[in-house]
Amino acid sequence: MEYRFSMLANKLKSSMIRELLKYASVPGAVSFGGGTPDPETFPRHELAELAREVIEKEYKYTLQYATTEGDPELIKQILILLKRVYNLDGLLPENVLITVGSQQALELVGKVLLDPGDYVIVGDPEYLGALSAFRMRDARFLVVKFEKDGPDLNQVEDHLKRAQRENELSRVKFIYVVSNFQNPSGITTSLEKRKNLVELAEKYNVLIVEDDPYGVLRFRGEQLPSIMNFGGTDRVILLNTFSKILCPGLRIGVVVADRQIVRKMVLAKQGTDLCSPSLTMRLTARYLERYDVLEQIKPAIELYRKKKETMIEALKEEFSDVTDAQWTDPDGGLFVWTTLPDVDTMEMFKYAEQRKVFYIPGEAFKPYEEPSSSMRMSFCLPSFEQIREGVRRLKQAYLDYIEAKGLRCR
Amino acid sequence: MEYRFSMLANKLKSSMIRELLKYASVPGAVSFGGGTPDPETFPRHELAELAREVIEKEYKYTLQYATTEGDPELIKQILILLKRVYNLDGLLPENVLITVGSQQALELVGKVLLDPGDYVIVGDPEYLGALSAFRMRDARFLVVKFEKDGPDLNQVEDHLKRAQRENELSRVKFIYVVSNFQNPSGITTSLEKRKNLVELAEKYNVLIVEDDPYGVLRFRGEQLPSIMNFGGTDRVILLNTFSKILCPGLRIGVVVADRQIVRKMVLAKQGTDLCSPSLTMRLTARYLERYDVLEQIKPAIELYRKKKETMIEALKEEFSDVTDAQWTDPDGGLFVWTTLPDVDTMEMFKYAEQRKVFYIPGEAFKPYEEPSSSMRMSFCLPSFEQIREGVRRLKQAYLDYIEAKGLRCR
Repeated sequence: MEYRFSMLANKLKSSMIRELLKYASVPGAVSFGGGTPDPETFPRHELAELAREVIEKEYKYTLQYATTEGDPELIKQILILLKRVYNLDGLLPENVLITVGSQQALELVGKVLLDPGDYVIVGDPEYLGALSAFRMRDARFLVVKFEKDGPDLNQVEDHLKRAQRENELSRVKFIYVVSNFQNPSGITTSLEKRKNLVELAEKYNVLIVEDDPYGVLRFRGEQLPSIMNFGGTDRVILLNTFSKILCPGLRIGVVVADRQIVRKMVLAKQGTDLCSPSLTMRLTARYLERYDVLEQIKPAIELYRKKKETMIEALKEEFSDVTDAQWTDPDGGLFVWTTLPDVDTMEMFKYAEQRKVFYIPGEAFKPYEEPSSSMRMSFCLPSFEQIREGVRRLKQAYLDYIEAKGLRCR
Repeated sequence: MEYRFSMLANKLKSSMIRELLKYASVPGAVSFGGGTPDPETFPRHELAELAREVIEKEYKYTLQYATTEGDPELIKQILILLKRVYNLDGLLPENVLITVGSQQALELVGKVLLDPGDYVIVGDPEYLGALSAFRMRDARFLVVKFEKDGPDLNQVEDHLKRAQRENELSRVKFIYVVSNFQNPSGITTSLEKRKNLVELAEKYNVLIVEDDPYGVLRFRGEQLPSIMNFGGTDRVILLNTFSKILCPGLRIGVVVADRQIVRKMVLAKQGTDLCSPSLTMRLTARYLERYDVLEQIKPAIELYRKKKETMIEALKEEFSDVTDAQWTDPDGGLFVWTTLPDVDTMEMFKYAEQRKVFYIPGEAFKPYEEPSSSMRMSFCLPSFEQIREGVRRLKQAYLDYIEAKGLRCR
């Protein structure tokens, strides 16, 4: 049967990550591929007990349809958390929308802001889920290099100036940025760049979509104010999620924005999935009410910190003889971004596969398809020994690759 | 602050139902408005215990990200249920997608099949959530009268013929139909019309989207074969949900379709919300494994049957002197559809509000905005006494309205 799919359906492709992760379940493999947190860090006993309780006692809420905005009890807890984590004051329930994970938040941002052909300023590399969501709206990307301290602001302004010159500034809808420990690069946007981004956004009248799923997973250094602290809800839409701080299986995403924007997103969500599951929202609300989620996550952060250090040490050990090899040393989050000279990490993947080690080729995070000499390496799931062994195998795969390609080890 | 929203955002309107339901919480009011099941019918003790169990024992699944297709354990149970309920054989896991409620299923159908300006054949009246989902894709509606036994098939064929004549047949993507106890009309599409719909769909090479959230809530008469029984997955996409049979708070929707279509919907869901919550999927799977959901729902069906009879009796009692007043007497589901001559039920709403009785004006279910003399009356939530009292108030509101309008009681 030949179906007549939509143009959207015809251009949809499976995410490279999904496809590559299939290999990672090979017996004996070490996978640096997935970006999923370690399930042993989830507070399962507390959640199990609370789930029983909220279904027994609050069944009229938890088993019934919810309002599209989300559980008011959860929104209440989120406002408290926003104050604690970001020192964001003066927010009202009308500034918050609960979504099914932050992927839905990204999709709704796309729905309410982007018409086909509108522009979004994104990084290179950039979070894949955001690119997918904006692609579904047929957006065009204005790409800026993601430097050691965040997006290249000269490039940001160049794009904005050119758009202004070409009378297209009104079609540049927002600058998207993962502000802390970016996925995939692990890079944190510096304090100065946060301020300057807001200045640019104000000067050219565009919005900023600040995505911060990893901010609480900081292992060292001082927390920076969020971009929203400088730009407020007028200028910034802040996205967050409980996937990393609590667990992903509840799929609780959060949008913080001006009430006009939240209102539009609520209307879009009505037609998208009507409402999020009441059960997972109320369960999260009661968890936040009863436990200190920021305390609870501390052992996980400590674990991730040690794993990250193990990965950095292993990289130093194995790749110190590879001149120009680079890796980021993130202050938090889940990812190290490794760059190998002369390597196409997608081509190298099959050598890694033979050596039973898996990573995500940087190509997956390119706004437009092109080869990359970088790779995303997640350190949160493998054990310490697996991290060391995986990096050893990676070095072997690299040597296999350069030999096969007739390159020399630099 | 003046935001530059997308064209989609600018045309989004709040659902009339949502707006009107705000009135229904007035103290002392009787509401026939909501389409929500009675929470007392939900198996809360079983679900509470199972929720605790699946978090404790299966936390590696329930608290982690799921695959976009949905929980394989739930899909297994759904295949068993599809065989039991519809006698659908030969379906594979690849034919099933789990969604966040059937609203997401409708939205994904729109995403993978509809380009802006494409046509969908819909009923008058029609389920509002489907209209919203297809409107988000800028679809155009070809409207057919919903008669006592389902869609007017002459009109269906007229639309298809005209599209063929105008070389637009390839843009008519599907016929949408709620086959059992339609929301809002309560009407069931007859056996003959089911067969004929498939013949028409084959003759003109269009798909049928069969939506069946209410089929299991049958209080009398024989269950009819689904349209998919005649058309198969080649021709029919079948949508279902656990919102009415188990509870809405878990937001479990189901798509059954050809694997090519499911595959495209999975790709669209990746960018839409990545995956559904693992917890609610696994909880539903274990419930279905351990309990007989079709047995469990029987007391609720019996309750709804009695409530529907109470409503029909009350309507007969109060409106027998109103010549031409009509109401459907559904064989199942949650809704009675009442039509009053010369009445604009939207205009009459304020009189009903004064009398503290609420319904949903038929206008909400019109594919294109126009007045309606019908109203949707849900009988599942009010008590027996409230149903009788509500219908008495409705009569008063009607009398107030025709007096104010200078009409006479016919």
